[in-house]
Amino acid sequence: MLEKLDSPEYLKTLDDKGMEELCGEIRKKIIETVSRNGGHLAPNLGTVELITALHKVFDCPEDKIFFDVGHQSYPHKLLTGRAKDFPTLRLDDGLSGFPSRSESPYDAFVAGHAGTAISAAMGFAAERDLRKGNEQIIAVVGDGSLINGVTLEALNNVRSSCKNLIIVLNDNKMSISSSVGALRHYLNRIITGSVYNRFKAAAKVAVKRLPSGKGLIGNIQKMEAAIKSLIVPGFFFEELGIRYVGPVNGHDIPELVKTFSSVKNFNRPVLVHVITQKGYGCDYAVKAPERYHGISAFDPDTGLAEPSSKKTFSAVFGETLCKEAEKDSKIVAVTAAMPSGTGLSGFAKRFPERFFDTGITEGHAMTFAAGLAASGMKAVIPMYATFLQRALDNVFHDICLQDLPAVICADRAGLVEDGPTHHGFSDLPFLLSMPLLSILAPRDPDELSSMLPAALKYGHPVLLRYPRGSCDLSGFSLASTPVQWGKGEILKEGKDLLIWAMGKECRTALEIREILKKKNISCTVVNGRFYKPFDKELFLSFAEKMPVVTIEDALAGTGIDAITDSLLVQKKYPFPVIHFSWQNTSFLPHGTIDGIRKKFSFTAEKMAEKLLEELQKKNG
Amino acid sequence: MLEKLDSPEYLKTLDDKGMEELCGEIRKKIIETVSRNGGHLAPNLGTVELITALHKVFDCPEDKIFFDVGHQSYPHKLLTGRAKDFPTLRLDDGLSGFPSRSESPYDAFVAGHAGTAISAAMGFAAERDLRKGNEQIIAVVGDGSLINGVTLEALNNVRSSCKNLIIVLNDNKMSISSSVGALRHYLNRIITGSVYNRFKAAAKVAVKRLPSGKGLIGNIQKMEAAIKSLIVPGFFFEELGIRYVGPVNGHDIPELVKTFSSVKNFNRPVLVHVITQKGYGCDYAVKAPERYHGISAFDPDTGLAEPSSKKTFSAVFGETLCKEAEKDSKIVAVTAAMPSGTGLSGFAKRFPERFFDTGITEGHAMTFAAGLAASGMKAVIPMYATFLQRALDNVFHDICLQDLPAVICADRAGLVEDGPTHHGFSDLPFLLSMPLLSILAPRDPDELSSMLPAALKYGHPVLLRYPRGSCDLSGFSLASTPVQWGKGEILKEGKDLLIWAMGKECRTALEIREILKKKNISCTVVNGRFYKPFDKELFLSFAEKMPVVTIEDALAGTGIDAITDSLLVQKKYPFPVIHFSWQNTSFLPHGTIDGIRKKFSFTAEKMAEKLLEELQKKNG
Repeated sequence: MLEKLDSPEYLKTLDDKGMEELCGEIRKKIIETVSRNGGHLAPNLGTVELITALHKVFDCPEDKIFFDVGHQSYPHKLLTGRAKDFPTLRLDDGLSGFPSRSESPYDAFVAGHAGTAISAAMGFAAERDLRKGNEQIIAVVGDGSLINGVTLEALNNVRSSCKNLIIVLNDNKMSISSSVGALRHYLNRIITGSVYNRFKAAAKVAVKRLPSGKGLIGNIQKMEAAIKSLIVPGFFFEELGIRYVGPVNGHDIPELVKTFSSVKNFNRPVLVHVITQKGYGCDYAVKAPERYHGISAFDPDTGLAEPSSKKTFSAVFGETLCKEAEKDSKIVAVTAAMPSGTGLSGFAKRFPERFFDTGITEGHAMTFAAGLAASGMKAVIPMYATFLQRALDNVFHDICLQDLPAVICADRAGLVEDGPTHHGFSDLPFLLSMPLLSILAPRDPDELSSMLPAALKYGHPVLLRYPRGSCDLSGFSLASTPVQWGKGEILKEGKDLLIWAMGKECRTALEIREILKKKNISCTVVNGRFYKPFDKELFLSFAEKMPVVTIEDALAGTGIDAITDSLLVQKKYPFPVIHFSWQNTSFLPHGTIDGIRKKFSFTAEKMAEKLLEELQKKNG
Repeated sequence: MLEKLDSPEYLKTLDDKGMEELCGEIRKKIIETVSRNGGHLAPNLGTVELITALHKVFDCPEDKIFFDVGHQSYPHKLLTGRAKDFPTLRLDDGLSGFPSRSESPYDAFVAGHAGTAISAAMGFAAERDLRKGNEQIIAVVGDGSLINGVTLEALNNVRSSCKNLIIVLNDNKMSISSSVGALRHYLNRIITGSVYNRFKAAAKVAVKRLPSGKGLIGNIQKMEAAIKSLIVPGFFFEELGIRYVGPVNGHDIPELVKTFSSVKNFNRPVLVHVITQKGYGCDYAVKAPERYHGISAFDPDTGLAEPSSKKTFSAVFGETLCKEAEKDSKIVAVTAAMPSGTGLSGFAKRFPERFFDTGITEGHAMTFAAGLAASGMKAVIPMYATFLQRALDNVFHDICLQDLPAVICADRAGLVEDGPTHHGFSDLPFLLSMPLLSILAPRDPDELSSMLPAALKYGHPVLLRYPRGSCDLSGFSLASTPVQWGKGEILKEGKDLLIWAMGKECRTALEIREILKKKNISCTVVNGRFYKPFDKELFLSFAEKMPVVTIEDALAGTGIDAITDSLLVQKKYPFPVIHFSWQNTSFLPHGTIDGIRKKFSFTAEKMAEKLLEELQKKNG
């Protein structure tokens, strides 16, 4: 049935039983494909009925569905003409693991980072309202994304920015690990209260307590407690101008279809609270939804994967942190909903009082960590590099500007397999511009285990960047040398060529060395270790003698290449090259523009003076 | 009295009348100083009693006060031993206009960007709880900051992260312009309902409607409406686990002191809702709080400032946008609470249906704009460069990645007078790393008026960066040439030296040229216009003939200097220089790491090949 389905139109012809069968097929296809290609399993299994019901009721692509995060859009892909291509999911040149406007007209908006769906959907809704269109705009938001700052900012504006909008709250009580925070408790109270019954019971109590009109005012305080328990479900959303509907069983297709039909053409924003189970229909995924959130290839029958013998950077980070935390009670760790992915699970178990999971709230997590650091703790904040992009201003404003002792770990830095939303690239150029921040990249997990203690000891802001997985240098018979602040490490010496490599690219460099050796070219290989402070001396001592190669898992012009070019140009270029810009060795102070420009010789007069000097040197 | 006060201890000896007198002095001092030095007037006048009462009740610096944003901390500075130095406020080497840990032990945390106070305070509170300390932690948050994503993320976590915390909601119904959104309406309902009376009245109605026990269940729906209106004030916060107290008159010192005393040593987080008036005690500031939010020098008696005859970049932006919007109904504008500062007030009046003020929510504003752009509109988003740092991930993930037709304007780019929290620097290195994004800098407001239409026509993401104020090039008799995409503009030709300047630094370059002319050095001056795409050809055509100078209001190594160095190194360095990193001409796709590395020749084999080629060139 699935392979023949080339548009969701087909769903309109199916009855409940047909829908159910189709959901079974979808589920099977997802397990089959993800077990082979890797990808997001549990979140997609949990939304099969939900997304199928949406496509039954609404008319895409005229109506638009926005996913938050897009990793639960596999059923949507299968229902919108991509079943045939689905086996290529996440493969080179295959289907993306996320919605993609260039992939299908059914994908209204990309989403790989959390919290964007409602804002983006509001943009479409506002355009529709300007044009007086009447298509439906639907944002599917997980309870994990609900507490993200962008979502909350959007919720505050929904009512004033668009006439109507359907928010489907896909509530599985999980972000990637369990959801946290007050809104989570609030949703639980709605669900467990079995609201309607609770309402009835509470109403009875309230009536009994009512003093039948007499002495009412004096009894108000007693009544207050009773009244509070009478609150209708979803009051929180109602106060934001959003009609609340639910909770609805997210695996009951007829109930879903009925509910979605009833909110169609509502005249104001509405939130439909749908309860789903992550991993639904697949035993091992239901039992361990965090493990089966995003996963590499595994056996579809048992859920088991081949155990990897290699220690990952994340695992070594976690183990090292535990060792250090045992010796130093000032060490605390903060994560934005990634205890397992970043390697913090062990720390969380052993030091629960020093472990803080803030949910998918990168900005708050970073500023909260800054508060901890400012009050005397040593804060460690591991975060995927791509999600760190959400907290860059907080790194700047709250950590670096105040020179606080925080260690930020950018895990999954550089290229990853999830595509352009997830490559960990643009944190680096931003953070390289930060005064006071040191930036290190370990060549392998072993080196991370010495860099982390050094960073904790340093007492200033430090960023450690490392990739997903591991890096094995055991075949290259390297000595391990202690980390010295701001110094690179010579791995191999040679006379023909310098290869300066950052992080795991040391392995690439060592491989190149082997290849070139066969051509009688001997290479020096340096493990750069530090982006900042950069080991200028070591670099120039080689660069003066031989050609220079740099290798880094970073975007061109944003890392070691830019740093070394600026040095090389100054050394050897036949004409003088002079740049006037602001030195970023310290943060620039406040004051008048003229005053600051004068103080830092950033005036036409001072610049002219400097130029004269340089030109005279040239002539002299 | 004020000058003698060297610590807030002194307040403990004052009675209500003494406190009131002191507040009068504080207010006078603020008006006097700001009228001379410029700074934030209305926000500080509104918090004089509030902050004085806080210092009366709490014991700083053991107890800690966090400001959100720090621009309302002048009364705090005056009360904590800085009255004598206050005349140096914002001057070179003088007091900062924001809290500063290096300035005073009474300043717990820096704050120049909105939304950080609760998160930072929670960090301090968590540290206190770990240590079983009992000092008080107080976060003073404006209603404008309340709806910021970082604040909302923090509110969701307050209850689970710390035992107690006092949040003072400084509600003046303004961010910088009027506050917006559902929470604003909610606060209004609390205030105008005169809650207690409203509660009583609603309770009476509810009782009348109660069917005295009979037929209760059938009548529940009717009751629902009545019950809703019974909601206690602050229910929204109570649902987040935060006790609500208020509203309190923020200019009534005895009431404030009583309230703050009563919440001291509360055993859970509490929010005190304080109603203040922006500009209180100063007629002209009360009448025009937006104008007197942040202001340059003025006459303290009348509030009037010398009119500036120069057209600012912001003003020209606003006028040009209106002209374009008249011709093109697809143009929409989005601001994060800065309609006036960014020059959008005129647009807001003329095209109210195409104007969106989201409040201080940079992330949501950018993604909302991306939604508008994806649905076919031309979205224009002016934002101060320093605040744009809050939306960088949204520019990446929602705009650039999907190649949407959005024009982002980074106003106040480069150096400003408000200090390190406000210099507009680090957006540039991040955004330079964005594929598909063009980045332009107009030399003067006139040029902005041609760049904006060109950017709107371009159909892809564009960033326009310009500084605060104006730039006058009228004295240099320049021709004005049309903007050509990716091309620089030769302003003056000379044979000895190339000066390549970005944005308003063209003026600096022209001044240098005048100075050097007197020394018989003739300079070429080029207005670079484009950071991206960079005019390589023009640059190299000069660089091959003469020394090179670049000038930009940017951090070293993050702008034109890095771009030109990479070109110069490739041209002339005596040894080959080869960098391996990811080209950022397009976003890298998803796929396996190995697959992508192969596709982009990012493998040891391919690199070795390339190196052999280069080395053979050298030898050949």
